[in-house]
Amino acid sequence: MAVLRWGIAGAGSICDDFAAAVRKLPVQEHDIVAVGARDAGRAATFAQKFNIGKSYGSYKELSEDPNVDVVYVGTVNSTHYEVCKLMLAQNKHVLCEKTLTLLLKHTQELIRIAEEKKVFFQEAVWSRFFPAYRKLRDQVSSGAIGDVKSINITFCKKIAVEKRAVGSGTLFSLGIYPLQLIMAVCGPEMPEKIQACGTLNADGVDLTLAITLQYKNGTIAQQTTSFEIGPPDEAQIYGTKGTISFPKKFHAAMDMTINGTTETFPFPDSLVQNGLQQVKRPGFVYQAQEVRDCIQKGLLESPRFTHQETLTVSAIMEEVKRQIGLNYDSLYEFGDGH
Amino acid sequence: MAVLRWGIAGAGSICDDFAAAVRKLPVQEHDIVAVGARDAGRAATFAQKFNIGKSYGSYKELSEDPNVDVVYVGTVNSTHYEVCKLMLAQNKHVLCEKTLTLLLKHTQELIRIAEEKKVFFQEAVWSRFFPAYRKLRDQVSSGAIGDVKSINITFCKKIAVEKRAVGSGTLFSLGIYPLQLIMAVCGPEMPEKIQACGTLNADGVDLTLAITLQYKNGTIAQQTTSFEIGPPDEAQIYGTKGTISFPKKFHAAMDMTINGTTETFPFPDSLVQNGLQQVKRPGFVYQAQEVRDCIQKGLLESPRFTHQETLTVSAIMEEVKRQIGLNYDSLYEFGDGH
Repeated sequence: MAVLRWGIAGAGSICDDFAAAVRKLPVQEHDIVAVGARDAGRAATFAQKFNIGKSYGSYKELSEDPNVDVVYVGTVNSTHYEVCKLMLAQNKHVLCEKTLTLLLKHTQELIRIAEEKKVFFQEAVWSRFFPAYRKLRDQVSSGAIGDVKSINITFCKKIAVEKRAVGSGTLFSLGIYPLQLIMAVCGPEMPEKIQACGTLNADGVDLTLAITLQYKNGTIAQQTTSFEIGPPDEAQIYGTKGTISFPKKFHAAMDMTINGTTETFPFPDSLVQNGLQQVKRPGFVYQAQEVRDCIQKGLLESPRFTHQETLTVSAIMEEVKRQIGLNYDSLYEFGDGH
Repeated sequence: MAVLRWGIAGAGSICDDFAAAVRKLPVQEHDIVAVGARDAGRAATFAQKFNIGKSYGSYKELSEDPNVDVVYVGTVNSTHYEVCKLMLAQNKHVLCEKTLTLLLKHTQELIRIAEEKKVFFQEAVWSRFFPAYRKLRDQVSSGAIGDVKSINITFCKKIAVEKRAVGSGTLFSLGIYPLQLIMAVCGPEMPEKIQACGTLNADGVDLTLAITLQYKNGTIAQQTTSFEIGPPDEAQIYGTKGTISFPKKFHAAMDMTINGTTETFPFPDSLVQNGLQQVKRPGFVYQAQEVRDCIQKGLLESPRFTHQETLTVSAIMEEVKRQIGLNYDSLYEFGDGH
C-alpha cells in the first residue's frame, strides 16, 4: 500500500479539522477519496472544499465505496456506534472519534466485531500520537520521577455543546483526555477505586465533573472537566523523585517539563513548510500517520492506544455515569433493539 | 488589657516557631510568661531560649499559673484534646494547633466546654489570619471571578512525621490547609458529598490522600495531600468569570493572583525591621495579633475561622477517615473512659 485512501463520515467541524490536516500530508501517502454525510448538499460542499472526488448523502453509500480503505468517523458522539457498525460491516478499517460510544456494551460490541473482521479499528485518541506522549511513557517507565503517587489534571472549555441528544457533556467531550493521560502513566488496567462528583444541567448533561481514580500500586489521580469555566488545560504528574508537567496544553502536547526542564516537540519541517500550522488542529497529522503505519504493518489497533485502553475508558465512564446519574440509554431505545 | 500574657504548652518545634514569632511583636502587647512541657528540663531550656520567666514540667502546672491569660497548645495532635481540657478547666483562653483533635466527638466536646466557660477558644488555622485570605473572601463574595465551579489544591511535603501514635498522617497534618481554603470560598456549611481515596502505610497512617467535596451550589473541590511527594503547595479557584490562584505557597500566602494580576501582602515594616523574616514562620504573628484583638473585644472565637468551621472540618475528616479506613480510636482507649 503506497497511498492510504480515506473516506470521511461526517461533514462537521471536526471532519473539517481532520481533512485539513490530512491534506498537509504527502498525497502519495494519504488521499481523501470520499465523504459521506446525512445531507448530500453538505457532503458535496465538503468534497469541493477539500478536493475530494466522491460525496454521498448517506453513511451507507460511503461504506460501500470500494475505493475507501479506511473511514474516519467524525459524527456526533451519539451516532458513533451505528456509523462504525455500518463501516465494519463492509470490512472497512475505522478511525472513530473519541469518545467511541456512550455505553460500555456498545464499545464492547464494536471491538468484538472489529476483531472478528480482522480490520484495523482505532479510537481517535489523538493526544497519544504526539511525540511528547511517547517520551512521557519512556520517562515514567525508566523511573525518571520515581514512583508516581499523584496525578492532577484540569481540562475545561467554555465552548462545548451541552446537548444530551448528541451525547455531549464533559465526560464524553473532555473526560477522555485526562483519562488517557492517567492511563498513559498508570497502564490500561482498571483502577481499584473510582469516585465521581458531577453537576448536571436540566437536560441531564454534566457541566462540571470531578473524577478520582485509585490504582493498586497506590497512585491516586484526580481530574476535573468543565464547560462552565475555562480554559485550564493543565496536568501534573508527581513522583517520589520528581515531576512531569505540561506547561501549556496537555491534551495536544508540544511541550513537556521533566524535573524542571522543558522539552519542545515541534512538527516536522516539511509539514510546517506546507502550511501545517495554519490548520486548526495540526496535531491530527500524527494520528493519520499512525493509522497508515499500523495498517501497513497489518496491525488491528495502535499499540499507542489499544483496544484494552478503549475498553477500560468505557468501563470507567460507565461507573462515573452511574455515580453522577448521567444516563444516555434512551438515545438508543430504537437503535439497538431495546 | 494592654499586654496579653501567653503560656506555651509544649516545647517542640512548632512551639519554637510560635514563640520566635511572638517575640518579634511589641512586648507591651504580647509577652510570654510561662512554658510547660512533660519534661521539666526541656521546658527550662525553652524558657531560657525565649527569655520566659516560668517553666513547668507538666501541663497541669502551666494551667494553674494565674499570670497566664491565654495558652498556646503546640503539642502533638494526639494530645490536643487532653491538654485543651486541662487549660479550659482553669478558664484559660486557648489557641490550639490544628488539627484540633482526631475525633469529631472530642472537637464537639472541647467547643462545648469553651462556650460554657465563655473563654476564647481558637483552632490555630494560621493561614486564615494572613491578609491575603481577607482579600480572597472579599473578591469571591464580590463576584470578581463569578460563580466558583472548581477548586483544585495540591499540598505535599516529604518532611512530615508518619506516626500513628502522635496522630500524624496527611489528613491531620496537611489536610486542614486545603480544607480551610475550600471553606474560605464555599462557606462553613457541610458539603453535600464527600469522597476520599487514600493509601495507608503499615502503621495505618495515610501517606497520600485525595478528597473531593461537592457543595449544594455546584462547586466541586479537589485536594491532594501527601508525604510521599513534594513540594507542590498550589491552589487554583476557578469561577465562571475568572481565576484566583496562589502562585507560591497557598497555605501561608504572601502573594495572590486574581484574574492574572498578582498582588503582594508584605509583613508590616516595623516587624520586618525587628528581624521578623529571620524566624521560621513569620506568619504566626498574624494569628497572635488576631487572638489579642479578639480577646480585647470579648470575642470567644475569631470570625476569621469560627467554631462552626472547626466543627465542619472535623466532621469532614470523620467521614474521610471512615472511607479510607483511618482509625485513631485506640489512642484514646484509656484517655476518655471508653
